[in-house]
Amino acid sequence: MKGIIMIIDGMADRPLEELGDKTPLEAAKTPNMDRMAQLGVNGIMDSIKPGIRPGSDTAHLSILGYDPYTVYTGRGPFEAAGVGVKVLPGDIAFRCNFSTANEEGIITDRRAGRIRDGTDKLVDTLNSMELEENIEIIFKESTGHRAVLVLRGEGLSDQISDADPKHDGKKFKKVVGLDGSPEAERTAAVLNKVIKKSYELLVDHPVNLKRLENGKNPANITLPRGAGAVPNADPFNGKYGIKSACIAETGLIQGIAQIAGMDVIEVEGATGGIDTNLDNITSSILKNASLDYDFILINIDGADEAGHDGNLNEKVEFIEKVDDVIGKVMEIKDVYFILTADHSTPISVMDHTGDPVPLVIKGPDLRVDNVNKFNERAAASGGLCRIRGSDVMNILMDLMDRSTKFGA
Amino acid sequence: MKGIIMIIDGMADRPLEELGDKTPLEAAKTPNMDRMAQLGVNGIMDSIKPGIRPGSDTAHLSILGYDPYTVYTGRGPFEAAGVGVKVLPGDIAFRCNFSTANEEGIITDRRAGRIRDGTDKLVDTLNSMELEENIEIIFKESTGHRAVLVLRGEGLSDQISDADPKHDGKKFKKVVGLDGSPEAERTAAVLNKVIKKSYELLVDHPVNLKRLENGKNPANITLPRGAGAVPNADPFNGKYGIKSACIAETGLIQGIAQIAGMDVIEVEGATGGIDTNLDNITSSILKNASLDYDFILINIDGADEAGHDGNLNEKVEFIEKVDDVIGKVMEIKDVYFILTADHSTPISVMDHTGDPVPLVIKGPDLRVDNVNKFNERAAASGGLCRIRGSDVMNILMDLMDRSTKFGA
Repeated sequence: MKGIIMIIDGMADRPLEELGDKTPLEAAKTPNMDRMAQLGVNGIMDSIKPGIRPGSDTAHLSILGYDPYTVYTGRGPFEAAGVGVKVLPGDIAFRCNFSTANEEGIITDRRAGRIRDGTDKLVDTLNSMELEENIEIIFKESTGHRAVLVLRGEGLSDQISDADPKHDGKKFKKVVGLDGSPEAERTAAVLNKVIKKSYELLVDHPVNLKRLENGKNPANITLPRGAGAVPNADPFNGKYGIKSACIAETGLIQGIAQIAGMDVIEVEGATGGIDTNLDNITSSILKNASLDYDFILINIDGADEAGHDGNLNEKVEFIEKVDDVIGKVMEIKDVYFILTADHSTPISVMDHTGDPVPLVIKGPDLRVDNVNKFNERAAASGGLCRIRGSDVMNILMDLMDRSTKFGA
Repeated sequence: MKGIIMIIDGMADRPLEELGDKTPLEAAKTPNMDRMAQLGVNGIMDSIKPGIRPGSDTAHLSILGYDPYTVYTGRGPFEAAGVGVKVLPGDIAFRCNFSTANEEGIITDRRAGRIRDGTDKLVDTLNSMELEENIEIIFKESTGHRAVLVLRGEGLSDQISDADPKHDGKKFKKVVGLDGSPEAERTAAVLNKVIKKSYELLVDHPVNLKRLENGKNPANITLPRGAGAVPNADPFNGKYGIKSACIAETGLIQGIAQIAGMDVIEVEGATGGIDTNLDNITSSILKNASLDYDFILINIDGADEAGHDGNLNEKVEFIEKVDDVIGKVMEIKDVYFILTADHSTPISVMDHTGDPVPLVIKGPDLRVDNVNKFNERAAASGGLCRIRGSDVMNILMDLMDRSTKFGA
């Protein structure tokens, strides 16, 4: 038996007056999800614990069986892994902006004219940077003006402040140690040097000279923020004795899969928005499910985006489109298929909340319950009652008959 | 949005044959609670965890988001705070009896003729006590023959035995250290000295000479018990970023609020019994809800008293009276209102049990369920399923939009 967990990011919601006190999921036409509820065992789930507002990152970590309070040190490591840096435990990772600075170090444009092209060349130059300290510097471009930075070496710490001043017209901030440790002081000093050198290397860079010619703001400095130490996460495959893959749209979730040691499958046209190519995602799921993976984690992100935007129609429509994907995934044979969300992103709040999410498991020999709709409220009367994210992999491994008995 | 948690102490129960297998709460006429169940989202709650028999103190600590296994060191600190001693972290606090001793130290009456008047004067005298050790002694009278004692100073411990012999006709016990530490030895020695001095100061006290004249047992010695170190509890307001108040009847719950740093509101005529003045309590709730408090904790105690007394009719009648209070609290605008109990006090057991209690939340945008009665069994099919006391504040803060997201 294989296992599939499909997480529709931010799908769960709260009742809305304009939907006659239904949630978007209750209002959406979702014949496939409802059939799955009917064929399966249902419940509600708190990704972390009741009332706690999870990030998508901490929720996924928890659902994969990692304690986010131990493993989650900040967004940097997962973003870095997500753009393809092969991070190692102990690396200090940052999210960076390419920005525009003047000679006095005033940041005149935090996003460097929303630069789209040429950051790969800027990164090549930055990666040639040499420091006296025995520290490896790894820059990698992400989308637009975004990049990541990884520091690798002995005696580093993530307890340091951000360089990004957060507003245009301010000087970039001097990075300082936050806990008084010599490691933090050293890392802060290294980072200040890296920022200064990034300006020296980029100010007359051909990419920027061209931008200036075209009247565009140059990307002449990098400003790191969100320092996090790459955790020493128990490799997922070893932990459960399985071969696993992840099909996700965003760097953040791909980064989690990467750090957990799962195979990360890229899908063409997967944007993480409501305009994503669901056909390609479906094909990728069906193809990879036919390979020798025991377990596939799938994350589809558009409903969360619509929730953050407070766009009710887009959320309902996207859920209905995802329902078609689920219909096709339901045809995969010999699988325990779990459908859920990582958190609620209510239209009325436009951000994540701590409300529990519905969860259904379909597969052989389950204690099928009387729930026949897949939504937040119907699930609450299901046979699983209320579980936590940290229970999900244990339940799945037990059903897949890959658990070992604790005791005699 | 404001938040209100109203705890009807010991309201939950077990089915009784004489009620046709209904619980007192199921049998009572509670139209307001039932309307609240209909309008809200329901569930059952274990204040600590399933099957654990909570005290009112440990249950309230847990519901307020404190881990009782860490914070609860004994009843002394909360009783002391509840009678108005401004306790500080590290203080060692005791419950005390005023008792009657003869010259040989035999306790002839543990409750000193159930003395009601004059203990304030005895306390004034006791507080004049001087010790060679650099330790502050704070006595404070409570109701009847009860008082509290607080020791303040460096190098003290709560790991010491009780002086109270628990039965009349026995000599009071020598206090000893329980863990072999020098701090416990020192505290025991201090306490033995305090007990001896209390006899010397009280034996010829005018209050006692008058009692002897009137043929009453003198209150000529104090016997401490229930040593506890005042915990260093995270201040409640800071922890949640709110301004909070507590309306409670008993010193124990007031003491918890005090130690948590909440404003403690006194209500005239609030006895903690079934004869309490519910009109005054209602007025106080409505008045304080109109002030700038973000959060109010309310405890009403009579149903617990009736449960301890095994008095079924009184319990049902008191629940019906409390239902009127709830009707008025339901009219408060812009509030998330949580109604629950801290534990069950079944008529058949006459003490607390570990049965879960019903809980309902009323307020905007909730996933209202199909439950339309407020009681132990109806609540179990509600949308919250089964939660813990430690979840309650997290759920409330999430609904009040005062939570921060953990992760991205």
